[in-house]
Amino acid sequence: MSLTLIPQQVIARKRDGHVLTVDEIGAFVRGATDGSWADYQLSAMLMAIFLRGMNTAETATLTEAMMGSGVVADLSSVTLPKVDKHSTGGVGDKVSLHLAPMVAACGVAVPMVSGRGLGHTGGTLDKLESIPGFRVGLTLDEYRAQLENIGVALIGQTAELAPADKKLYALRDVTATVECLPLICASILSKKLAEGIDSLVLDVKFGRGAFMPDKARARELATAMVAIGRAMCKPTRAVLTAMHEPLGRTVGNALELVESIECLQGRGPADLMEVTYALGDQMLLLAGVAQTAAEARLRLTHAVASGAALMKFREIVEAQGGDPRMVGQPGWLPAARLQVEIVSERAGYVTDVNAREIADAALWLGAGRTRAEAAVDPAVGVGQLAKIGETVLPGAVLAVVHANDEARLAEARAMIRQAIVVGDDPVAPPRLIEETIGYETHQR
Amino acid sequence: MSLTLIPQQVIARKRDGHVLTVDEIGAFVRGATDGSWADYQLSAMLMAIFLRGMNTAETATLTEAMMGSGVVADLSSVTLPKVDKHSTGGVGDKVSLHLAPMVAACGVAVPMVSGRGLGHTGGTLDKLESIPGFRVGLTLDEYRAQLENIGVALIGQTAELAPADKKLYALRDVTATVECLPLICASILSKKLAEGIDSLVLDVKFGRGAFMPDKARARELATAMVAIGRAMCKPTRAVLTAMHEPLGRTVGNALELVESIECLQGRGPADLMEVTYALGDQMLLLAGVAQTAAEARLRLTHAVASGAALMKFREIVEAQGGDPRMVGQPGWLPAARLQVEIVSERAGYVTDVNAREIADAALWLGAGRTRAEAAVDPAVGVGQLAKIGETVLPGAVLAVVHANDEARLAEARAMIRQAIVVGDDPVAPPRLIEETIGYETHQR
Repeated sequence: MSLTLIPQQVIARKRDGHVLTVDEIGAFVRGATDGSWADYQLSAMLMAIFLRGMNTAETATLTEAMMGSGVVADLSSVTLPKVDKHSTGGVGDKVSLHLAPMVAACGVAVPMVSGRGLGHTGGTLDKLESIPGFRVGLTLDEYRAQLENIGVALIGQTAELAPADKKLYALRDVTATVECLPLICASILSKKLAEGIDSLVLDVKFGRGAFMPDKARARELATAMVAIGRAMCKPTRAVLTAMHEPLGRTVGNALELVESIECLQGRGPADLMEVTYALGDQMLLLAGVAQTAAEARLRLTHAVASGAALMKFREIVEAQGGDPRMVGQPGWLPAARLQVEIVSERAGYVTDVNAREIADAALWLGAGRTRAEAAVDPAVGVGQLAKIGETVLPGAVLAVVHANDEARLAEARAMIRQAIVVGDDPVAPPRLIEETIGYETHQR
Repeated sequence: MSLTLIPQQVIARKRDGHVLTVDEIGAFVRGATDGSWADYQLSAMLMAIFLRGMNTAETATLTEAMMGSGVVADLSSVTLPKVDKHSTGGVGDKVSLHLAPMVAACGVAVPMVSGRGLGHTGGTLDKLESIPGFRVGLTLDEYRAQLENIGVALIGQTAELAPADKKLYALRDVTATVECLPLICASILSKKLAEGIDSLVLDVKFGRGAFMPDKARARELATAMVAIGRAMCKPTRAVLTAMHEPLGRTVGNALELVESIECLQGRGPADLMEVTYALGDQMLLLAGVAQTAAEARLRLTHAVASGAALMKFREIVEAQGGDPRMVGQPGWLPAARLQVEIVSERAGYVTDVNAREIADAALWLGAGRTRAEAAVDPAVGVGQLAKIGETVLPGAVLAVVHANDEARLAEARAMIRQAIVVGDDPVAPPRLIEETIGYETHQR
């Protein structure tokens, strides 16, 4: 009878709160892929899933069907262990840019398929495209060849990889069905499992700059994804990290790229490096190239100190069409026409930097997009951001606004000034690493 | 603030269970009318309304907004009292086809705007279009002129009448958002109130062949619609009728049309005529052309017996472009290539005819549609259906399958055979007329 699975009957089953069968979920995903379900049927189903939920088995089935909606990259020719990292997204989160070459410099292949930014700031692809000539649109063959050659590739989702996810992701954004655990889970994992990895590390963020502000909800998402990764025989760990203030000192595409290069040069901000290492440790452990977290950390710090990670980044830039000399010449990157400092009027302690408000300012300056098809301005954003816990004297720089438009500069400047609070009492920097989920089960 | 009401924010409000404001409902209805909301956004909203509900005030606001999305027909030039009938839909429900001319033959104007098929089987328009040349797409001027001339018009929803409903109705049909009280309520009443009526009779069906299987839910819908009709100063009554087995002996567009003509010839099946008269009584009472139900019944039976109702039907066919001679020549209607009897293997009593399963078989044969833009096959369906309570001998015909495809015929035949149960003990035919709601308040 699976031939007679018509869309509205499948939608009605979920609408009425039933657990969907493998056939029913298969019909939905096939419908998204081959167009046999209309967009309005897909979105009605998405809303039904949003409001009725899906259990773990359904979510795993959905993930597998979405993964199987396209090609699953065959990376058997890449002999190194293959581990990727995915972040649920945060303000100033440029970790992928330097973590991928750091881990690759430790003898682990990093096949990384990233997305574009939607909402707050640009995504990894947007940041990479700040480099003149950099190509994120490799074919699957180019991607595989680059992984064979240099052990790392940073590309965008191709048409072949999880096309059902591409379709559903675009619809969810415009139908108020984004913040739904099983849909998030399936979207992330289907894409990641299709890219040909052996194992996966997830950075699941919570806090006001994260896409799931609530820590308990973020933990729920992390736990679900770890369970599903395991069910699909891809060891998965999730690191739960706080996202209250921006990560690092920059928000904006080229500005973040420069900061990532500084990380590779051993000059990265403490908070950014803390998250980077926590994720890198788990990647090396999952890959089996380190036996303990301490050993993993040693290898990663050595990769930075020796310059091997920076050289790996140069190799990526060169392999994907950028001029590798830019790594030593950040002046080659797009720069904003207007750069204005925001200074503290008083002495005190930085007690708050609101990630959400900084992100809104960056978006207003043009660093992010409000519509999927919009372009981002690589040059604009916020630099030299103060960090919570710092001591400031009158005249100390709290941030630098990079803008290409006077009117927007003025508004963004006011927003940023508002977002940074200088108070009388010293505060400790927020705790960043909350918990690692799935660690025990895969411990070697 | 209404300028900044973006679709996904309004969707999210209903998704999260809030009561929508007049502005928000207005934005949704405007979005459906002018296309500023995409279909996938409308359907996500419909599913959110389905699962979160709407209170009476929201439903009345929605009804009014949908009515106001287009023209409200001015029928002041039609001097007769103007009453329409609407059914929530059931399997084999062809009542409109013969009831409209019956009532019109009694001196009541029947301005009837009908819909297309919703799931199971074709709607009134699909059945009428079995007549070669029949035009359901009259303009509002043609509609008004025909009502002035012959007192009855059976047309499809024009682009001018409640265009928001037209859009949403088509979407609901294919997104499993049909069976939703506030949406049904607003859809029916917005359309009916826009067609220019003075009063309205509703046939609200319950049972497994109805959109609302549950009697209590159907009563709830009936009560809500009577209340909203009254609030809009259009006396409204609802007759609650059972829909367990198909109404009459046919399911399928041309087959049902032929059965309706038989009703007008005084040869209609008992169950079908019982429902027809119950609704007709109320129409005549609301129109004020009869003072008691008994008087109304007398006038209606006379309209059939005298041939006046049949002549009125011929007038409709002629006025709307069909050849009126078809009324005496059902052979002119499309006929299926394959016609196969299903016979009883044993003697006994027909204890069940499952309307839902018969409908699914008819849909499978092509009598209904699974996508809004799909065509129906006028010829296919099920004829000569046995009725619950009948005595059968071995070899008695339980149904005749009309098909145009061998493979579908075989499957449908099995489904239909399954749906008809012959048992050992005699059973009474099910009670059809449950209750009339709104009768007292409008009693003359």
